[in-house]
Amino acid sequence: MARIALDAMGGDHAPDMVIEGAAMAARSIANARFLLVGPETVLKEACVRYQLDESRFEIIPASQVVDMAEKPSVALRKKKDSSMVIGARLVKEGRADAFVSAGNTGALMAIARFILRTLPGIDRPAIASLMPTCIGSTLMLDLGANVDCTVEHLLQFALMGEVYAKAVMGLTGPRIGLLNIGEEEMKGNEVVRQTGERLRGNPCFAGNVEGTDLFAGRFDVVVCDGFAGNVSLKSAEGVAHMLIHFLKEAFGHSWLTRFGYLMAKPALNRFKDRVDPRRYNGAMLLGLNGIVVKSHGSADALAYRNAIEVAVNLATKRVNEKIAVEVGRQTAAALTSVPGGD
Amino acid sequence: MARIALDAMGGDHAPDMVIEGAAMAARSIANARFLLVGPETVLKEACVRYQLDESRFEIIPASQVVDMAEKPSVALRKKKDSSMVIGARLVKEGRADAFVSAGNTGALMAIARFILRTLPGIDRPAIASLMPTCIGSTLMLDLGANVDCTVEHLLQFALMGEVYAKAVMGLTGPRIGLLNIGEEEMKGNEVVRQTGERLRGNPCFAGNVEGTDLFAGRFDVVVCDGFAGNVSLKSAEGVAHMLIHFLKEAFGHSWLTRFGYLMAKPALNRFKDRVDPRRYNGAMLLGLNGIVVKSHGSADALAYRNAIEVAVNLATKRVNEKIAVEVGRQTAAALTSVPGGD
Repeated sequence: MARIALDAMGGDHAPDMVIEGAAMAARSIANARFLLVGPETVLKEACVRYQLDESRFEIIPASQVVDMAEKPSVALRKKKDSSMVIGARLVKEGRADAFVSAGNTGALMAIARFILRTLPGIDRPAIASLMPTCIGSTLMLDLGANVDCTVEHLLQFALMGEVYAKAVMGLTGPRIGLLNIGEEEMKGNEVVRQTGERLRGNPCFAGNVEGTDLFAGRFDVVVCDGFAGNVSLKSAEGVAHMLIHFLKEAFGHSWLTRFGYLMAKPALNRFKDRVDPRRYNGAMLLGLNGIVVKSHGSADALAYRNAIEVAVNLATKRVNEKIAVEVGRQTAAALTSVPGGD
Repeated sequence: MARIALDAMGGDHAPDMVIEGAAMAARSIANARFLLVGPETVLKEACVRYQLDESRFEIIPASQVVDMAEKPSVALRKKKDSSMVIGARLVKEGRADAFVSAGNTGALMAIARFILRTLPGIDRPAIASLMPTCIGSTLMLDLGANVDCTVEHLLQFALMGEVYAKAVMGLTGPRIGLLNIGEEEMKGNEVVRQTGERLRGNPCFAGNVEGTDLFAGRFDVVVCDGFAGNVSLKSAEGVAHMLIHFLKEAFGHSWLTRFGYLMAKPALNRFKDRVDPRRYNGAMLLGLNGIVVKSHGSADALAYRNAIEVAVNLATKRVNEKIAVEVGRQTAAALTSVPGGD
């Protein structure tokens, strides 16, 4: 039974969206219990209103709220009784197996890092998320936590991605790609080139990924620094908005196209469902000594439910333990392969 | 009258695509003449076949061809009589006002840089291209020529973009954005942050652009290093392919959706036309002492025609001369603003 702490006050539509999303998760995910973190009276009233099953839900009081625009340093210093801090502490103290928040990303990262610390052998946590592809999905990391990365950081991201793909996606030989500006080995900046060289020893490494190939489904894990990853993800989001705007405009153009829209509705609904960004809600803060999942701030209940599922998967598949084992294994292998080291 | 040299042997479908695209350009662009560079007998035969107007077309012989996969250094050393080298030389010698090629990008960049050199005050040429937005278009640079950029390089890109927006897009106060991973000033890596600080003195600077805003039309020029720019552009292309794949799949699902497709054709054709990538073909190698435009290698005649139009605009609007003037003006201003410098 996974115990999932939820930041009931995080997100644009909290706490109702969180409670409703948790209720949906409770119905569809059998092996989970939920700890709702936030102001007791508000949450008690909401639990009654949403008729939550008391055996699956517990309220953990927290008197403060981290604002969406609050500086991470201020949140860390002045909001010690916030739902975000208390939620992270529940994981730290072993009272919860994972923490989900739709609150302020910067504050969540700072608080999670401060309270949970990174896993042994991991220098920096990465923001990882599943992205849709033509034929399935790809795990991409880092999506914005680390703007400057060394070769070692990128190698650690690759390791975490590989463990995730094996443990959660169930792949025995995941194909790991390195985000670059060309497929050739000599492409990219110095850090990316060196990372590629080091990764070539890993049988899972499948080469450089260009932006055009990101969504084709040829890679299961894509590794990049947080600047490139964030630019890639947000450019993809931006162009998707533009295309959908153009599609709406084209259908609204005349009575003929509006009639066509009515006739095309079954197909357009299928399309809409397929590209629904709510399906991919739930970014993981991988590399911490505890599971933390970030939901989009503007998430609705369905999107939030999906973020909860991401957290449940990380917890039940014991991804953090497996990352720690893999880091230990690689460190040991590196030590024995040092000339004269054995 | 702009004299445009065309690499008749560059591109997947050369030389026919080039000749056909040039014929289309000749019909729709009145103030241009064309120099077809390539093997004389092949081109003579093609000119007859496409019934080209002799007063608008001239053949410039070139016996060699740079292959699409050829290493830039090899092309530069061993292909001195190639259509690519001869085309660039025509610009250098003042016999052409611009050169368009759909050939090997790396080789074109190397050859153009070697033969034409950069403009005074510009350290590195940038690949710039117009990108569609919801309400118009944005010039983005660099898209892949420079993976590592200093603050000075990015400032030079901003200057070139500003000149282009004023001269070609006809904007008096173009809004210049800096590609970053958040709107806040403190976001991004050191180079991006410092570039932002320096740009804040420019009245045209409109702040950081996130990937999500790239296609919304809030900026006329977007500045970035070639790694981020390339990742952004190609991620946008990749996700556009995926969405169109999903749309096709949704319409192909059942007899009901296939019927809907027939009814929706007028709207879908409008949409298809609006997002047609051929409309945006023609990347400029800005910052060289001469105009060079790169067409997509897989371009068809219509796309190639558009790349020719980009070259004609750069030539007739005298963008390079204006960049040189602006660099001179800024250098002079910098000198007089040095404490005690006047």
